[in-house]
Amino acid sequence: MPQGKPDMVPDDGLTTRQRRTRPLLIVHTGPGKGKSTAAFGMALRAWNQGWPIGVFQFVKSAKWRIGEERALTLLGETGEGGPVTWHKMGEGWSWIRRPGTEEDHAADAREGWAQIKRDLAAETYRFYVLDEFTYPLKWGWIDLDDVLKALADRPGNQHVVITGRDAPQGLTDVADLVTEMGKVRHPLDTGQKGQKGIEW
Amino acid sequence: MPQGKPDMVPDDGLTTRQRRTRPLLIVHTGPGKGKSTAAFGMALRAWNQGWPIGVFQFVKSAKWRIGEERALTLLGETGEGGPVTWHKMGEGWSWIRRPGTEEDHAADAREGWAQIKRDLAAETYRFYVLDEFTYPLKWGWIDLDDVLKALADRPGNQHVVITGRDAPQGLTDVADLVTEMGKVRHPLDTGQKGQKGIEW
Repeated sequence: MPQGKPDMVPDDGLTTRQRRTRPLLIVHTGPGKGKSTAAFGMALRAWNQGWPIGVFQFVKSAKWRIGEERALTLLGETGEGGPVTWHKMGEGWSWIRRPGTEEDHAADAREGWAQIKRDLAAETYRFYVLDEFTYPLKWGWIDLDDVLKALADRPGNQHVVITGRDAPQGLTDVADLVTEMGKVRHPLDTGQKGQKGIEW
Repeated sequence: MPQGKPDMVPDDGLTTRQRRTRPLLIVHTGPGKGKSTAAFGMALRAWNQGWPIGVFQFVKSAKWRIGEERALTLLGETGEGGPVTWHKMGEGWSWIRRPGTEEDHAADAREGWAQIKRDLAAETYRFYVLDEFTYPLKWGWIDLDDVLKALADRPGNQHVVITGRDAPQGLTDVADLVTEMGKVRHPLDTGQKGQKGIEW
């Protein structure tokens, strides 16, 4: 996309350079495809800048994200760009498809969030992908106010991308960039199931 | 996203397996961010499957896509997944920002499309990214009917992802998957220009 000129220049006391390198909170939400894939596409840029990348995957099945995980992990190992650390919350569950014991999943999600908070405070990464993080928020497993506070207080220059449907209003209200992926047409509508290389 | 069950099973004479491995035409359009980044995120999955990938970049500035290009090219060179070939149409121009001589750009775009047609006919790649391809279509530089015919006639199992704003109706009508990226909030709205690692 073209780089545009800002529509207006805010009266915030920042220089253009300061404003330009502001740490961003980015939300990809909506019912359509591409929320997570776009976040992983962004991670390629972050990698190219040499930024340490932390991926926190809040949804897991055997198939999901294996291509992205393998590609980004391998890129991180080349030493040509930033290192990549890939976290899968609560290895072994897959809460959307097979709910299992809800309490365990909620505890896993809270544990994952506690790790993110520690990493934000320690400035462990420069670029975070909180993949499908809206679900534990939506279900009340993780406290939204706690998330908003940790994000607002994060030190340094740490960019955070949060993906998932139904992002809470409190989150989108404070985000710097919100993109809503709308579904126009999907192969499942015409009786096609997901296929390898495309959906995973 | 979870893999769902199809809402209906079409009466098309295909087995589930045939339908499942159907070559897909995918369009990412709309005014929001993430159209191209999601396409490059999908390319990570294609790479992981070992599929040959062809990227055709119909927009170029010194900064655009450099992270994606470097990451995907490096991944292609590892031999761990599919090979990646990156084409920049009309090296040296940047038609959106500095229009220059329109006729030259149109000729460049047509030359790029002619190459894609040859590659589709030869089944050179398994996964194509036609990045910002909607613009030469919109501006009439490339004939839409010619594109639709070449896509409809493509042999084998070649997936094609087309990105860019204002995808023509004729294209979205025949696409298997259309996602509309809607802009909800963008940093440029509040006076912030693009920054490295995020926009490129």
